[in-house]
Amino acid sequence: MVPHSSCLTYNGKNGVSALPNRASQVLHNEEPDSHIHPKVPGWFSEDCPIWPGQAHFLRVEKILFQGKSKYQSMMVFQVMLIGGGDGGILREISRHSSVEQIDICEIDTMLIDVYKEFFPDVAIGYEDCRVKLHVTDGTLFLNSVPSGTYDAIIVDAFDPIRPDHELFESEFFELVSKALRPGGVLCIQAESIWFKSLDIEQLLTKCRQIFKGCVDYAWTTVPAYPSGVIGFLLCSTDGPCVDFRNPINPIDPQNYGISKQPLKFYTTEVHSAAFCLPSFAKKFTDPKAKSSSCNGFDRERH
Amino acid sequence: MVPHSSCLTYNGKNGVSALPNRASQVLHNEEPDSHIHPKVPGWFSEDCPIWPGQAHFLRVEKILFQGKSKYQSMMVFQVMLIGGGDGGILREISRHSSVEQIDICEIDTMLIDVYKEFFPDVAIGYEDCRVKLHVTDGTLFLNSVPSGTYDAIIVDAFDPIRPDHELFESEFFELVSKALRPGGVLCIQAESIWFKSLDIEQLLTKCRQIFKGCVDYAWTTVPAYPSGVIGFLLCSTDGPCVDFRNPINPIDPQNYGISKQPLKFYTTEVHSAAFCLPSFAKKFTDPKAKSSSCNGFDRERH
Repeated sequence: MVPHSSCLTYNGKNGVSALPNRASQVLHNEEPDSHIHPKVPGWFSEDCPIWPGQAHFLRVEKILFQGKSKYQSMMVFQVMLIGGGDGGILREISRHSSVEQIDICEIDTMLIDVYKEFFPDVAIGYEDCRVKLHVTDGTLFLNSVPSGTYDAIIVDAFDPIRPDHELFESEFFELVSKALRPGGVLCIQAESIWFKSLDIEQLLTKCRQIFKGCVDYAWTTVPAYPSGVIGFLLCSTDGPCVDFRNPINPIDPQNYGISKQPLKFYTTEVHSAAFCLPSFAKKFTDPKAKSSSCNGFDRERH
Repeated sequence: MVPHSSCLTYNGKNGVSALPNRASQVLHNEEPDSHIHPKVPGWFSEDCPIWPGQAHFLRVEKILFQGKSKYQSMMVFQVMLIGGGDGGILREISRHSSVEQIDICEIDTMLIDVYKEFFPDVAIGYEDCRVKLHVTDGTLFLNSVPSGTYDAIIVDAFDPIRPDHELFESEFFELVSKALRPGGVLCIQAESIWFKSLDIEQLLTKCRQIFKGCVDYAWTTVPAYPSGVIGFLLCSTDGPCVDFRNPINPIDPQNYGISKQPLKFYTTEVHSAAFCLPSFAKKFTDPKAKSSSCNGFDRERH
């Protein structure tokens, strides 16, 4: 989103990317309500208490892998759509030639091994020569780096089912803010606007107190997530103004990076459109965006 | 979308609107695979053969109504979100003061009665004094009106589960085209871009041969639909160019119409953003939009 030379991606526990394809899926079963349904054999069900009254069922054609690491249970099975994530964000970052260094924190090496075996097209991200893997807890790692180390920090560390997650605490955001250079950016998954389990407005208010730059909210479609969408919280630290809606260094669709495949979803227009929120969610928009260049999309239209 | 004085909405069989609220839901059970699941009592499941390997489950707290009209089975039950449709589009049209006349075709009066009883906030659309209800088959009705009668025709006639539906046939589109004035517009639900059951590209090609004006494709989020999104096919007849992306008569958010409630979802920005399609779906975009005013969003950005 901004020209950057160093980038930290932080895959803590769970990660599912938004790149759909007919592939297998890995599910990280930490929740008691994600399981092969006892009464509907052959179907995996995701029936989370914070989305009461709804469940998403996936037919399990074949269980390819089942295992338990120190951190989570994993099950890999064949389903119709969705590509699962670990290494996926690395693969996408690899499309940006301006990036000089990519540090990734992943505490669970079994997760990496499972992805490399069953999702080589996703795990290919690890093969980018700019990637340096740190097998450690992300928060510990952040504590160890000097202030202002990173231009961008991407957090893809958990399924969007835990609004009380420690990664939504002020302490974590302060740690991220400190690790970023002035005008550096954070991107973190932040719930679906359709569910009330996470108070997004409160989260944005908290982040505005910590980050001091631009704090904005975007959303996109993920067919396999309950409600079909996921949101992203974007924050920049005090410094040069970051216009999240209009990247000053747009992606080059001809640079396939390590993936060797063109983009399937992302375009510059889709990027800007992701910041257009429904009436009921307009309060999530950065107030600065009303009058500053942080609101390129609106500015150009009015 | 365009200034219009007369508008036909055509509710053939099924209709579910995209306005979420904590309310009851009516489901039109024509499909054998939409039912209270025999093995999971208390849960309604939608497990459609054209979306293999996925099912959406809704917990049924209480069945409020169960009945069978000449055209369909209906079940009304309490669920967490989604407002169901009949009268909903009328309610939304009522926000447009430029509309002088609204004809609606609905063949199934039991559906109207069920909505009036269980979804008065949706069925309130029928109370707009510009509405004239025609209890008849929409195709028969269209056959009976003189050429060029309507400025806009909106079809919300079926759940997005039947790509072989007669409403996607050339004969139906020709009938619509004939009933529209030059530069008149059609809006019809057209599947999710995530599913391959309907060949959207082929559909657009067919429509371009028939409508001769602008043919475009947009999408939006509907949490209760499988994949979480639904698409819209928009066609204009030969005549004054219609720029679907940038309404020349944008909605007045202060005009609540018959609903007496402000808009919950729609904004002018969300409208334009709905035409920004993922890379893999860019072929759905009107080729004329590349060089004409039908592509206001892109034009302003580049």
